[in-house]
Amino acid sequence: MYDLVIIGAGPAGLAASIYASRYQLKHLVLGAEVGGTISWAHKVDNYPGLPGLTGVDLAKRFVDHAKGLGATIVAAQVVDLQRKGEVFSVVSSDGKRYEAKALILATGTRRKELGVPGEKEFLGKGVSYCPTCDAPFYKGKRVVVVGGADAACSGAIHLAKFADKVYLLYRKGKLRATPAWIKGIEKEKKIKVLYGTNIVKIVGEGERVAGVELDEPVEGGKLLAAEGVFIEIGGVPLTDLAGKIGVRVDKENYIPTDDGMSSNVKGVYCVGDVGSHWKECQQVVTAVAEGAVAVCGVYRLLYGNAKG
Amino acid sequence: MYDLVIIGAGPAGLAASIYASRYQLKHLVLGAEVGGTISWAHKVDNYPGLPGLTGVDLAKRFVDHAKGLGATIVAAQVVDLQRKGEVFSVVSSDGKRYEAKALILATGTRRKELGVPGEKEFLGKGVSYCPTCDAPFYKGKRVVVVGGADAACSGAIHLAKFADKVYLLYRKGKLRATPAWIKGIEKEKKIKVLYGTNIVKIVGEGERVAGVELDEPVEGGKLLAAEGVFIEIGGVPLTDLAGKIGVRVDKENYIPTDDGMSSNVKGVYCVGDVGSHWKECQQVVTAVAEGAVAVCGVYRLLYGNAKG
Repeated sequence: MYDLVIIGAGPAGLAASIYASRYQLKHLVLGAEVGGTISWAHKVDNYPGLPGLTGVDLAKRFVDHAKGLGATIVAAQVVDLQRKGEVFSVVSSDGKRYEAKALILATGTRRKELGVPGEKEFLGKGVSYCPTCDAPFYKGKRVVVVGGADAACSGAIHLAKFADKVYLLYRKGKLRATPAWIKGIEKEKKIKVLYGTNIVKIVGEGERVAGVELDEPVEGGKLLAAEGVFIEIGGVPLTDLAGKIGVRVDKENYIPTDDGMSSNVKGVYCVGDVGSHWKECQQVVTAVAEGAVAVCGVYRLLYGNAKG
Repeated sequence: MYDLVIIGAGPAGLAASIYASRYQLKHLVLGAEVGGTISWAHKVDNYPGLPGLTGVDLAKRFVDHAKGLGATIVAAQVVDLQRKGEVFSVVSSDGKRYEAKALILATGTRRKELGVPGEKEFLGKGVSYCPTCDAPFYKGKRVVVVGGADAACSGAIHLAKFADKVYLLYRKGKLRATPAWIKGIEKEKKIKVLYGTNIVKIVGEGERVAGVELDEPVEGGKLLAAEGVFIEIGGVPLTDLAGKIGVRVDKENYIPTDDGMSSNVKGVYCVGDVGSHWKECQQVVTAVAEGAVAVCGVYRLLYGNAKG
């Protein structure tokens, strides 16, 4: 029986593990993607104390820190959750079952899809959700990035290092990224921002993407030629597991918590991008802080008298 | 006119500066102690991604990160605050005046005093509030540490590296530090914890501390001989400035905020140890997250449409 099982191995889950080790809680981290989606970021410049790292390197710092304090991190998907009285049962994709007195859900988000024809068909054949991963394949080519927040803008800047031309398509009239990224967009001549524009269809030629069809004509037509289409329109909270044990979600599918990161189910805490806490400012640093605070709560619940 | 003046240059204030730079806010950091009181910690093992640093080194990371993004950090005490309509006026000890549209208060705490005879008299002559700073002076000697939370326990462990004997005096019956520190206390044979014990008086011999007089006899008497007395009983929020512009404090003198770290005064945010947010789990990581969130709020207030 574990004191705590942490589901999700991104920054929030790993920070929870770091704190759980400091609190001497018997715990386990289960996550399909060790390091989390921050690994997809090509540069993180705003995690205080560790400027300018790649997402992969920052994630590795968290993993190494957690492991250094003795954490067991299992790279496995959680496929089922059950609750029997005050005990939670966690089933992983390799068929193992773990029992715990408390849970921290740090499952994060999956990338939102555009939902247009051609998106599924050309996935991996020009359609991508990860500029960091795939930018080097587009050297000297033309690419389209869809979105207007941080991931889209930083992705476009990264792509401009390789591609000849980057079109940033945003449905609204004003980018909503951190101003430092917007300034980067303005400075980069290879990037052209097309406002108020939506993709109707991703078109291909044979096996590969050849361009996108738009709802409004730009540069003389509705067809924009491009070899790559990067979709960066945000995330969908991964809350399927939460529902299995009665954890409530809001209408946008985020998990609401109290100030101590507790969900509506006693013993179940929720941290990072899957939660609605600080939804308007979801950052690596807020995710890790939430992980720490949740463990303070778990410790108080199980053993009382916790303090920092 | 600055967009933002940040008062306090500890982790919370420096993180706010990092975010303010990312948001391209014209801002200034003013703080009497650049790096903040975390510099007094001999080891910080729970800031995710940077394990095992000294407090000084961790503080330096934050300072360097903030400066690297272009921050101006002025090492000066703020002595007065005024508010004229929507403009705040900040006066520093060197007589300069700065005007700003928004303020972040990150003033932290000062160390709480025991308030017993001999404490002021022998300050710097055996009485200390900083084990990290002064431990090396007590090689082969006997010391007393007062307190039962993280700072007292980690301080006692650090002192045991130098001193022959460390008495940890706590007024309650059970230490309330992070379990990892408590385990460290239990493992260290040089440390003896005396529960339910209070110091009545710090006694000296000539110029220096010679011991403490207790309210209950231990080891045969009420007088415990020691060359050093380290007082680690927590902090008092530094809220004098806040009062000058109508910022409300709670009965323990912490500044309450909403979830976005705003105080009751529009345009004034409050982060880190001086605030009541997450008071039960005040950590470096929570302080820096609060700094980030406050800047998201400042940006929204001044320019609207902020996003991570």
